[in-house]
Amino acid sequence: MAEDPIYLGLLGFGNVGSGTLQTLQENRQSIALKAGRPLKVKLVADVDWKRPRPVQVDISEDQKTEDAFAVVEDPDIKIVIECIGGLEPAGELVLRALRNGKNVVTSNKELIAKRGREIFEEADRHKVDIRFEGAVAGGIPIIRPLKESLAGNRIKRMMGIVNGTTNYILTRMTQEGSEFAAALAEAQERGFAEKDPTDDIEGYDAVNKLAILASIAFESRVNVEQVYREGISGVGAADIEYARRLGYTVKLLAIGEDTPEGLELRVHPVFLSLSHPLAAVGGVFNAIWVQGSSVGDVMFYGRGAGVLPTGSAVMGDVIEVARNIQHGATGRLACTCFSDKPVKDIAETETKYYIRTAVKDRPGVLGKIATVLGDAGVSLASVLQTRASGEAAEIVWVTHNVKEAKVREALDKVRALESVEQICSWARVEE
Amino acid sequence: MAEDPIYLGLLGFGNVGSGTLQTLQENRQSIALKAGRPLKVKLVADVDWKRPRPVQVDISEDQKTEDAFAVVEDPDIKIVIECIGGLEPAGELVLRALRNGKNVVTSNKELIAKRGREIFEEADRHKVDIRFEGAVAGGIPIIRPLKESLAGNRIKRMMGIVNGTTNYILTRMTQEGSEFAAALAEAQERGFAEKDPTDDIEGYDAVNKLAILASIAFESRVNVEQVYREGISGVGAADIEYARRLGYTVKLLAIGEDTPEGLELRVHPVFLSLSHPLAAVGGVFNAIWVQGSSVGDVMFYGRGAGVLPTGSAVMGDVIEVARNIQHGATGRLACTCFSDKPVKDIAETETKYYIRTAVKDRPGVLGKIATVLGDAGVSLASVLQTRASGEAAEIVWVTHNVKEAKVREALDKVRALESVEQICSWARVEE
Repeated sequence: MAEDPIYLGLLGFGNVGSGTLQTLQENRQSIALKAGRPLKVKLVADVDWKRPRPVQVDISEDQKTEDAFAVVEDPDIKIVIECIGGLEPAGELVLRALRNGKNVVTSNKELIAKRGREIFEEADRHKVDIRFEGAVAGGIPIIRPLKESLAGNRIKRMMGIVNGTTNYILTRMTQEGSEFAAALAEAQERGFAEKDPTDDIEGYDAVNKLAILASIAFESRVNVEQVYREGISGVGAADIEYARRLGYTVKLLAIGEDTPEGLELRVHPVFLSLSHPLAAVGGVFNAIWVQGSSVGDVMFYGRGAGVLPTGSAVMGDVIEVARNIQHGATGRLACTCFSDKPVKDIAETETKYYIRTAVKDRPGVLGKIATVLGDAGVSLASVLQTRASGEAAEIVWVTHNVKEAKVREALDKVRALESVEQICSWARVEE
Repeated sequence: MAEDPIYLGLLGFGNVGSGTLQTLQENRQSIALKAGRPLKVKLVADVDWKRPRPVQVDISEDQKTEDAFAVVEDPDIKIVIECIGGLEPAGELVLRALRNGKNVVTSNKELIAKRGREIFEEADRHKVDIRFEGAVAGGIPIIRPLKESLAGNRIKRMMGIVNGTTNYILTRMTQEGSEFAAALAEAQERGFAEKDPTDDIEGYDAVNKLAILASIAFESRVNVEQVYREGISGVGAADIEYARRLGYTVKLLAIGEDTPEGLELRVHPVFLSLSHPLAAVGGVFNAIWVQGSSVGDVMFYGRGAGVLPTGSAVMGDVIEVARNIQHGATGRLACTCFSDKPVKDIAETETKYYIRTAVKDRPGVLGKIATVLGDAGVSLASVLQTRASGEAAEIVWVTHNVKEAKVREALDKVRALESVEQICSWARVEE
């Protein structure tokens, strides 16, 4: 092994940064052997060196700086590890590093999802590596397996549980029969949800991740605006109980499919058949299920977030980049968005639907709704009628496969029926 | 993209060979873009061109040869794909190809497990690639995720369902309550077990795969002789029923653990807690669960065998090698067996045990056995007594964690008791 170290520079020293350095420090020798050269941290930039860190890492005073630009301009540093997060200043720093001929490893999902094209083009221009395994599903290897191990496949479909916060909330609602607000409060108390949980519970985080995964899987750049999005705040304890009775569990899924009419890209709550491998993925765990033309069904499962899991992903990328530096082969894995596929509107999606209606408890209501649905071209797979306290009753419907446009039309007509109090909720069903 | 093709040569054109070529033909354009150059098959060697193939692939007459050595000697061919299987002539051909400066992709588990060291050293000497993703768990990406994505971790433990035949048989026994012989016959009828099923059902196949996985995970070369092996032919319908009643399912697991006293390496039937992610892996599916120092628990799941899944793995490797050729970086990922760790004897394994005893149906038997077990240092977690027809009864025991040596000693003493008819079976338990 060559003794000459490869110098690393870190941008940001919060959770991901310290998880990355702890991983490096714990396994320094083995990592050096795998990389072919010792890896040495030259500079770590952070705006606040006084805040507490989640893990204990040794950094000497001369490694610390408050000037992030000093890192991307340092001529010794060959690999810049971006752990700031968000669009700016991370974006400017990453582009500057690439322009300076440095390789970049990042776990910044928002940056890659929203400015991926620009970043990959810059990396390509300078023949350097840009790697981002930690951007999706924490430590679970998914970016490289998709991009490399499964490269011989045409990926037809993927479904992922890619947000631990929402999966934890839905798991607790299922276990406890609790309502969304209570489960969210518990998740916040236990540190599994942010004080402002919007990004997670409304699905924005999952949209970023799906945009990244779909771009790789379908070899076509996906913009976040092209992804249909619905969060989980509308899921009620009643929906989860009906799901159970019908053989489903409720999950927030990120779904991508390559169809002849274009890409289907959507993040929303799903009634998922209990027999699907993703149904058993509980708590904060993530999993991504992929269907390829040759490989068939594969699934990747693990912790989707956390200081050390994300550090594991970042370190795996750093080792790979170091190996490429060692062999003069940086830039060997370029962007694979070769085509520009159209994206289908959500109205064109065809799937099964769950519909929960509150109705006046009088004879003939079920028949009336069924007729309206049937006339609109929505055929029914099962019906469940329950009596609530007082005058109202609930009827729950599961449809056969049908276009979403038709379901939306039909629901407008059902809503207009005098005997229907309201459409309490409806959701897409996946088997 | 450069237009100059990279020439491939195939050794053997059975299942894996035709699955590989079908994968290449179906996605030729996308594969060329990913590889950086078109991939072209120059020669395919097979001893019998008349036998039927599982999939339809176009090969022209001038690509066909019966002389495998012509492939490894051809100066145009840069990547040799070995799909013959077995130790010889595959071993000689692979070594010859490496010596001729050719890169090799193989899915031959026996060859890699038994002659890995020699093969990796030869590849290293000639700075060429040797890749073998298809050797373990078919199309599931596991070799590269372990070796690359998780490279920053110290892998502590892994448990895998790596043999589809035995998993199918155990799944059917569980679903149908059938005995081993009936389930095996059904598996043979449906093409999931060979006419001579020894290699699968006695665990030899799983041992090869564990040797490969453990060598990578623990960074220490594991020889197949170092792996403890027990097959599933001794598992009875009664054991599977007791497992269910106790909250377990019976699986043939390949288990590796890096302990301070050395590596634990074992393939045998396990009473696996139903709450473990591997417990839900049914039928011919495979899955490998890995515990890393940073990443925590991750699991990889999919089809562990089959023409196209294995073709997917092989093609992923071929694309990676082509990219390395294109960037002058072959040999960049060398063998990672840096250390030489001792291997623990199975007697030193510490785990929980399930023990099924047939006893004479008379008062005090349970107490007598419990006393013998307790005196031998085997403490008990649960006991289940059932009455069979006639005079005999069965008592089933689950122990707390204890060294296997103590269990074996204790069982000898139990067996000697006058009131004990026999030890019907015993197995290790994992939670």
